[in-house]
Amino acid sequence: MTDEAKKEKMTIVMFSGELDKALAGFTLANTAASMEMDVSMFFTFWGLNIVKKNRTRFSGKGFILKMFGMLNKGGTRRLALSRFHMLGMGTSMMKKVMRKMRIASIDEMMELAKSLGVKLMACTMSMGVMGVNADNLRPEVDSLCGAATYLAEARKSAVNLFI
Amino acid sequence: MTDEAKKEKMTIVMFSGELDKALAGFTLANTAASMEMDVSMFFTFWGLNIVKKNRTRFSGKGFILKMFGMLNKGGTRRLALSRFHMLGMGTSMMKKVMRKMRIASIDEMMELAKSLGVKLMACTMSMGVMGVNADNLRPEVDSLCGAATYLAEARKSAVNLFI
Amino acid sequence: MTDEAKKEKMTIVMFSGELDKALAGFTLANTAASMEMDVSMFFTFWGLNIVKKNRTRFSGKGFILKMFGMLNKGGTRRLALSRFHMLGMGTSMMKKVMRKMRIASIDEMMELAKSLGVKLMACTMSMGVMGVNADNLRPEVDSLCGAATYLAEARKSAVNLFI
Repeated sequence: MTDEAKKEKMTIVMFSGELDKALAGFTLANTAASMEMDVSMFFTFWGLNIVKKNRTRFSGKGFILKMFGMLNKGGTRRLALSRFHMLGMGTSMMKKVMRKMRIASIDEMMELAKSLGVKLMACTMSMGVMGVNADNLRPEVDSLCGAATYLAEARKSAVNLFI
Repeated sequence: MTDEAKKEKMTIVMFSGELDKALAGFTLANTAASMEMDVSMFFTFWGLNIVKKNRTRFSGKGFILKMFGMLNKGGTRRLALSRFHMLGMGTSMMKKVMRKMRIASIDEMMELAKSLGVKLMACTMSMGVMGVNADNLRPEVDSLCGAATYLAEARKSAVNLFI
Repeated sequence: MTDEAKKEKMTIVMFSGELDKALAGFTLANTAASMEMDVSMFFTFWGLNIVKKNRTRFSGKGFILKMFGMLNKGGTRRLALSRFHMLGMGTSMMKKVMRKMRIASIDEMMELAKSLGVKLMACTMSMGVMGVNADNLRPEVDSLCGAATYLAEARKSAVNLFI
């Protein structure tokens, strides 16, 4: 395979778990994938909330992680705006606008991403810190990995973003 | 033109609309441009506030977008610090310090960016979501574009940042 | 030296001064360095808090910067979570979890970074804006520099992140 035949790569670290950043991340990932780029998304820290199941039990061991799991439930339906969340009012407003403008929901975008071959990976170290285990994650997640796997991809990629 | 003769490129996605991040973005853009790099800034989501006119009417259609437009007026004079905004006290303090240290204001930095050939682009999808139309944007904005235009630039760029 | 023999580079702009982002930054830096990459971290704005001494006197000149220095003391022991800080409760919880899982503290990670050859640089412009002088910074910081030094590294790097 020649260099020209190889697909160009993009990696996105999804560190933040907010609705607006998830929207930006998936829009870029899906557009790149439809431009024949090879895209990998690495969900870490608060970004894990994006790939958590919408219904999940608290899995952290010990009182501290259980409490944290209760506060930080995650799941696409719970993602909030990074600004103007306003106890949910701003966020639900944004979702209404998205529907009205026929912009896909995060769930639909994730489905599209999968069908375009975007790889979804979850960071094991932050899963530990956040008390998230493999059962809490959606089946869309392709694999669990560490920083070394991310870096091996990133160093070969034309575009690397930290969102 | 040979590869060596081509100017190296940089892209910056300006996602955040805060004073400190705008300052970081323009400092990097202007420094890169003065180092003969070819710089494009893509303003999206809250970052659109940086390139909104300081005086503008609410343009969103429907009650929801009108209300949102009222809350999220934007314009360089309204940018706030991401931390220690403190009802405006921290932000006005930072502006005073910037003046005292002869650091250019965001308006001056934008003017400098234009004179150095930095391209300013606004993201159409997020304009829709945020209820921003072309009339609300400053004349410094070179064009409106989508994620595909950004990615076409980014894949050819030596440096890509998401701020 | 041939191109293949040259070490691949990574740069990280550490703009944010939060515990979780510091953790992400050092994890990536240390992993990359242990994969034989040549890593530079640029501490700027709130990120300066990560490389401030834990005990330091307010050094800003004038009332404004003194007040700001009091509010924004910095130092690794004062880094807070970007979410769920909850007056310190969430942050101290996270630190407990990190200890329990044998994840290194930021101080230990910084020490490891130094031993792996990661270069730590502090941005002079933001030091001015934040009222930080060279005496306030930890001895681990290799040098003070401006945006041009960062860009000279970034344009030669395989991976550039803004955290």
